Amino acid sequence: MVIAAHNNDATVDGILLQLPLPAALDAAAAIMAIDYRKDVDGVHPINAGLLAQGRAALIPNTPAGGMALLQHYQIPLRGKRAAVVGRSAIVGRPMALLLVQADATVTVCHSRTTDLAATLRECAIVCVAAGQPGLLTAEMIRPGAVVIDFGTNVTADGALVGDVDFAPVAEVAAAITPVPGGTGPVTNAMLLRNLITITRNQHR
Amino acid sequence: MVIAAHNNDATVDGILLQLPLPAALDAAAAIMAIDYRKDVDGVHPINAGLLAQGRAALIPNTPAGGMALLQHYQIPLRGKRAAVVGRSAIVGRPMALLLVQADATVTVCHSRTTDLAATLRECAIVCVAAGQPGLLTAEMIRPGAVVIDFGTNVTADGALVGDVDFAPVAEVAAAITPVPGGTGPVTNAMLLRNLITITRNQHR
Repeated sequence: MVIAAHNNDATVDGILLQLPLPAALDAAAAIMAIDYRKDVDGVHPINAGLLAQGRAALIPNTPAGGMALLQHYQIPLRGKRAAVVGRSAIVGRPMALLLVQADATVTVCHSRTTDLAATLRECAIVCVAAGQPGLLTAEMIRPGAVVIDFGTNVTADGALVGDVDFAPVAEVAAAITPVPGGTGPVTNAMLLRNLITITRNQHR
Repeated sequence: MVIAAHNNDATVDGILLQLPLPAALDAAAAIMAIDYRKDVDGVHPINAGLLAQGRAALIPNTPAGGMALLQHYQIPLRGKRAAVVGRSAIVGRPMALLLVQADATVTVCHSRTTDLAATLRECAIVCVAAGQPGLLTAEMIRPGAVVIDFGTNVTADGALVGDVDFAPVAEVAAAITPVPGGTGPVTNAMLLRNLITITRNQHR
């Protein structure tokens, strides 16, 4: 199998599996086949588990980028109320775990959340990864909140938009990431950071 | 190594590592050495990762027991606000992930949470695994809330008590687990359930 060959090839430092796979291939088995030490995307269950257990791990790049933005702009997290909207395995859940690790009090919201606006208005930090354009509107945000928009939706006319109704929310929020040009480029930087980490670990 | 021998012994179905280990042994390495398919305690990072990714897994017995109690008493979870107090790798975090999986809107609170009472009063379900006797008092609970007490603390006079100030909270809550005799026995039952699952998987 191609993945096993890359696992055993000392000249290959990182492995990134482009998803989705053709239907004939089992994506879960393919991910499990990656040597977790070369898992540049942080998608192997071992890396997800180390993150969930609060231990050092290769972290999925999108939530890692969200945390890097919060840290770069020195947004206080300890003891703050934070919400994550969306519970995907690759963005929402790991982002919530990272915020817990950073000492925020974290609420995970999703499609079954009954009063999203009231829940989000309690929060100083709101991260959205729901894949739903316009989901987050200005009345859902506490004035002065910080908003991270992980949404990447393509509209009917081909434009890339996030999950946040940007202009009105930007008037209420203290800080907000735009789409495009917000979390996306930082995600790519985190991919390179993971690759550097992996390469250092393997050639130590 | 003893663990490797048990991994390869077809007559051994489940492996439970009694922690803490003597200081000379590396607990993380020992857990990683367990074949995750024999991990009856759900502590291997692969099982933690499968749970974090919302996939079927061997779940740690204590939070599995909390979920079993909620399900047995048919406590509605979908769309309900739930809180988990405590973020340990073995109880708090997996319990939060299980509640998210069950469609609750889940808030993770911990020692850095600044207004625990206000946060918990929003919630219909409150699970406590903080290891702090008397942490949860009656004024922190919304009338009619359901309280799961995972605390197992031994007092100076040798009594086993939970994290909840039981008698006053029981007057406010719709339902509450006592300590002892609440989550503990169900935890043991879940251990046996995991063992049955593992045994079936291996002899299929």
